[in-house]
Amino acid sequence: MKTLLLTLMFFTTLVAFAQSPEEQLTQLNMQLPEVPAAGGSFVDAVRVGNLIYLSGKGPRTSNGEYIKGKLGQDLTVEQGYEAARLVALLQLAVLKKELGDLKRVKRIVKVNGYVNSAATFYDQPKVINGYSDVMIAVFGDMGKHARTAVGTNALPFNMAVEVEMIVEVAD
Amino acid sequence: MKTLLLTLMFFTTLVAFAQSPEEQLTQLNMQLPEVPAAGGSFVDAVRVGNLIYLSGKGPRTSNGEYIKGKLGQDLTVEQGYEAARLVALLQLAVLKKELGDLKRVKRIVKVNGYVNSAATFYDQPKVINGYSDVMIAVFGDMGKHARTAVGTNALPFNMAVEVEMIVEVAD
Amino acid sequence: MKTLLLTLMFFTTLVAFAQSPEEQLTQLNMQLPEVPAAGGSFVDAVRVGNLIYLSGKGPRTSNGEYIKGKLGQDLTVEQGYEAARLVALLQLAVLKKELGDLKRVKRIVKVNGYVNSAATFYDQPKVINGYSDVMIAVFGDMGKHARTAVGTNALPFNMAVEVEMIVEVAD
Repeated sequence: MKTLLLTLMFFTTLVAFAQSPEEQLTQLNMQLPEVPAAGGSFVDAVRVGNLIYLSGKGPRTSNGEYIKGKLGQDLTVEQGYEAARLVALLQLAVLKKELGDLKRVKRIVKVNGYVNSAATFYDQPKVINGYSDVMIAVFGDMGKHARTAVGTNALPFNMAVEVEMIVEVAD
Repeated sequence: MKTLLLTLMFFTTLVAFAQSPEEQLTQLNMQLPEVPAAGGSFVDAVRVGNLIYLSGKGPRTSNGEYIKGKLGQDLTVEQGYEAARLVALLQLAVLKKELGDLKRVKRIVKVNGYVNSAATFYDQPKVINGYSDVMIAVFGDMGKHARTAVGTNALPFNMAVEVEMIVEVAD
Repeated sequence: MKTLLLTLMFFTTLVAFAQSPEEQLTQLNMQLPEVPAAGGSFVDAVRVGNLIYLSGKGPRTSNGEYIKGKLGQDLTVEQGYEAARLVALLQLAVLKKELGDLKRVKRIVKVNGYVNSAATFYDQPKVINGYSDVMIAVFGDMGKHARTAVGTNALPFNMAVEVEMIVEVAD
């Protein structure tokens, strides 16, 4: 899986200047999900100047169910990585909805990942890499971001991870 | 001339129904608390450009005591919601102190809420709604924000919730 | 120790306009560590406009080992304070690498500190003060920041604290 991803990322780099983020997604066989209706008391994203602040989101399978459980107890690192990858695709779907076209993304600025963790689980970075790797695969160097990954004893709906981010967009 | 008059009349009508955030607070029977002295090693708020970053705050009752305990163990969702509501009023008091007038708020951009949680408590969003609902009640559409709500196993002073936010202000 | 620090901070204030941050560090006998190679899926810092977002970092001793353990269980508040102080020096080293010269720092805007905590540990602010006090000692009033300190049940590599920050830089 990792080798495959690295191979794809290498290919990505080769064609980075020729392809749009949407074409990258297709190339990588990644599909953006539908964006579920926002909670009500808040919105999915707020733009201020050239920055978009995205609300924290969790991983949902194609039938809309959350991937639940604590890392180091209910889920393996690999399952956590896959969950974080799903959140990345969801946040890209939110971004696309906001911007119309992912080409308008100038830089993935900051990612904060919260990992639902047993108290003895210390591999939060390996889990959140599932999110970061999607950003780099889709946007190349523009996808490289500052990041904080931490554990937490409890997340909404018992979801496995929650990730928020800040994105810079072109004028 | 006629157009100008009509425009002025339209504007006048709009203003008649539009209330300032302070009037909204009075209308809603919400009172802003005193802002306690900041801790020393940090400040309540920092402005950079048109953004104000507010430090994380916890819920205090009118006698200055923190509302303490973990959700899903010591406190109900309702008690958590009320606690988050108190933090919202405190942060508005901080904002008013910084800005002089809450009319200068242009947008509530981002809210991060940390809920002191038992490991099996999954209703962090319902708790932080207590905060978000105040922002929307006071600022309307300008109060709608991006948000992340997570659980944590421990907060300063064992307070029930801690909330920080980023606010955009008019020039 | 605290008295010594306060005395040094008083001296710092007196000469604040005469000394560069680098001279302050020397005066305070603080040495910036080497910046370890970044993880791969993310970078140490991203600049957007006049803001630099720094990735979350943990405390490492001079031999590169993390200071590990939970506050309120494995480590005392003093040990946590010292750990947070080490993170501050590391983040300053990252900043210096980005900027060339710490003189270009205009304001420490926002600090978020995550403290690896037992569920009954409530002194997160005292721990993160170790970070904040360095910023104020080095930058004076420009070092005063908005801050959020929370507990967490688990951090990467079981490190004692993790701290990220946002810094405003001069044009």
